[in-house]
Amino acid sequence: MSKMDNIVSLCKRRGFIFPGSDIYGGFAGTWDFGPLGVMLKKNIMDLWWNFWVEKRDDIFGVDAAILMNPQTWVASGHTKTFADPLVECKECHGRFRADKLADGLSESVSTDEFRSLHLKCPTCGKENWGEIRKFNMMFSTHVGAVLPDDFSSEDSKALVEKSTAYLRPETAQGIFTNYKNIVDTLYPDIPFGIAQQGKAFRNEISPRDFILRDRECSQMEIEYFVRPDSWKPEFEKLLKETHDFLENIFGLSPSDLTDVEVEASDRAHYSDRTVDIMFNYPNGEEELMGLAYRTDFDLKNIERASGKSMEYRDKLTKEAFVPHVIEPSIGVERVLLAILSSAYSEEKVEGKDETRTVLKLPEALAPYKFCVSPLLKNKPELVEKAKAVYDQIKQKYTFVTWDDSGNIGKRYRKQDEIGTPKCVVVDFDSLEDDTVTVRDRDTASQIRVKISEL
Amino acid sequence: MSKMDNIVSLCKRRGFIFPGSDIYGGFAGTWDFGPLGVMLKKNIMDLWWNFWVEKRDDIFGVDAAILMNPQTWVASGHTKTFADPLVECKECHGRFRADKLADGLSESVSTDEFRSLHLKCPTCGKENWGEIRKFNMMFSTHVGAVLPDDFSSEDSKALVEKSTAYLRPETAQGIFTNYKNIVDTLYPDIPFGIAQQGKAFRNEISPRDFILRDRECSQMEIEYFVRPDSWKPEFEKLLKETHDFLENIFGLSPSDLTDVEVEASDRAHYSDRTVDIMFNYPNGEEELMGLAYRTDFDLKNIERASGKSMEYRDKLTKEAFVPHVIEPSIGVERVLLAILSSAYSEEKVEGKDETRTVLKLPEALAPYKFCVSPLLKNKPELVEKAKAVYDQIKQKYTFVTWDDSGNIGKRYRKQDEIGTPKCVVVDFDSLEDDTVTVRDRDTASQIRVKISEL
Repeated sequence: MSKMDNIVSLCKRRGFIFPGSDIYGGFAGTWDFGPLGVMLKKNIMDLWWNFWVEKRDDIFGVDAAILMNPQTWVASGHTKTFADPLVECKECHGRFRADKLADGLSESVSTDEFRSLHLKCPTCGKENWGEIRKFNMMFSTHVGAVLPDDFSSEDSKALVEKSTAYLRPETAQGIFTNYKNIVDTLYPDIPFGIAQQGKAFRNEISPRDFILRDRECSQMEIEYFVRPDSWKPEFEKLLKETHDFLENIFGLSPSDLTDVEVEASDRAHYSDRTVDIMFNYPNGEEELMGLAYRTDFDLKNIERASGKSMEYRDKLTKEAFVPHVIEPSIGVERVLLAILSSAYSEEKVEGKDETRTVLKLPEALAPYKFCVSPLLKNKPELVEKAKAVYDQIKQKYTFVTWDDSGNIGKRYRKQDEIGTPKCVVVDFDSLEDDTVTVRDRDTASQIRVKISEL
Repeated sequence: MSKMDNIVSLCKRRGFIFPGSDIYGGFAGTWDFGPLGVMLKKNIMDLWWNFWVEKRDDIFGVDAAILMNPQTWVASGHTKTFADPLVECKECHGRFRADKLADGLSESVSTDEFRSLHLKCPTCGKENWGEIRKFNMMFSTHVGAVLPDDFSSEDSKALVEKSTAYLRPETAQGIFTNYKNIVDTLYPDIPFGIAQQGKAFRNEISPRDFILRDRECSQMEIEYFVRPDSWKPEFEKLLKETHDFLENIFGLSPSDLTDVEVEASDRAHYSDRTVDIMFNYPNGEEELMGLAYRTDFDLKNIERASGKSMEYRDKLTKEAFVPHVIEPSIGVERVLLAILSSAYSEEKVEGKDETRTVLKLPEALAPYKFCVSPLLKNKPELVEKAKAVYDQIKQKYTFVTWDDSGNIGKRYRKQDEIGTPKCVVVDFDSLEDDTVTVRDRDTASQIRVKISEL
């Protein structure tokens, strides 16, 4: 099994991540977080929020609805351009993302270029391709009292169209549409940022790579509003802070992170600079997150579409201008997988012909910080003492788990796998001298500690 | 203005809650949380999670995808029964929820019964009603590579149908579908619970009452799995704990809370007991949350639909049975509005012909715990000293805000409105003796405190 397979297997075995709707055979591109996964995900999201919003004075939070006025996506360009090239095999009617069927194809591959490659259908093996069509990746729905038979009635066509809305494909527009409300209510000094965490949805033609390319993901985005003439130094500053954050808070190794300056031809047309931060995932390098300089593209679009001014009046100089924007954007699932990949290791157990799997998670990310166990579960006096120790730690730290399953070796293996930094074991000596064994996850070394000093 | 109007107005003015997609004239039934609202919402969700999941040993978290295998909603009965009675005016084609057009109508009102009332259309004033039809409130979408012209093609009908999926109308099914995964990975002692926080969507025909009846809401639900013979005492216990939580953690007054035993005829057919906890909202009593005894209805449905056993094997007695379920379910927006309503008050300012608006939020819920100000903003020595005090508090508490706008009276008014419990003011005396004024939000009384003792 590859390292990636091992991680997927551990995630399911230990209750981190299950396939979505597992009980019904799954649902492509969706994943459910189990008890351990929720804790890890919450730690990730809370640490991000604390670092970027709570601890700073210049970034404010919003939490916009997932269903937005459809004009949002016309103004942002998503209804026209948020699309992948789709090709259908005329023989078996299988549908594929054309640019993923051969190496070196771009998203703007033409039908002629595609057909000239004489590719076989991956499903039926024949070669009979339809035209390449643009497939919009936004999920659409209908908001309001539209009935099934309205769809087949000519009379109701306008009603059906008017009711069409989308699941947001990015959280960013929920920030831009609230920019004016926030300037009007808080009037922050510039530069300032607006941050949001929340779900975004993309109807990927072929979801794949575990949680890397899913149809439903959680994003953490900041739109940072700056004076147009100061975007360059502000970009540098945010890039530096981002690395600081990834390395010191999430514990990612600088050697796994690579900044890639996206070339002008690959950048969105409105962007004058984009840096993709790549991570060395088990299956190869992939985008972890990006920093994009979006100019005043979004605010100007909203200005045109809404007829309302997006100008900010500088408090000192009194000049009015539409701010420019730098966007650090990160997907929760992508960073969670990067954290799991970094933490996952298999090690020989000293003195034994055995391997142990360890999740060497930074303490702040670990679901549980401590595990408390009685050495033997059939000795009531040990269990009672251990429960008292458990209660003592739980009152202080909350994130402590109890484990009296199997033997002590098995418990260590389990706690290693879920990344618990310290195992506290109550044994017969504990009854005599009020000390316990504290075992370290990463070194497997054990020390005796007084219960009162835990 | 009514109290409710005042709350809505304060929410917008101070950045708690804006209408969704406000910049485009809104989007019915959606609301966006602004900087202050996000903080309040996060406090609510974190306190709930801490009380019910983190501090307990018997309740585990999940975070399931919003898009679920559509079989989920067939098995749960939602595709058939999650519907409201819709009636159309044949004159103006306005569509309405029939049971809301007159008092005393039930959701199962028939066309004959409705027509016999001779109601006029609220839009055009005429009386020409169509048949009452069941309108399913689940938002539907299409998952996978379905193109617009597939909808008009007979060939693609099956493809379109197969791709139909729904935005979950409740978080509960994301718990039930993960029950087996959690029993298999954790095998917890019974009784145990599974908790989830997350978005749910309902295509309300007429969203109304601010955030009380919106199309997109956040739910906090627990499914508590018990031995079939012990549901009665477990129900009582959860009901007691729920009141304990609402009153002691969220600070709701027992006098605003009423338990209503839902009569058998109004209960879902599978439920043998449901208690609605009503809250005394400014516009009248409304459901705040509910506790429902759901028997083994959901797990049995899943067993039938998936062909997999939902039995739990008791660790002591070794007997196997499908657990019964008690569900405490609460909407974040409903409880947030209850908290705002409880906290909102208008008071005469002592000695002045003036009223102050105060949000008397419990400290744990208040967005900011402290505000630091210099008495005058044009005295650099005061500003500098105040900044030092601000930094000192921020290092310890995070949730502190800076305010040097307007005069000190205006700042107090603003901090009262956003519920900041303590205002710390640095004045000329502070420069001499290192003390500050600390003003209390609720009493407006002021005391001098040494900076070192803050």
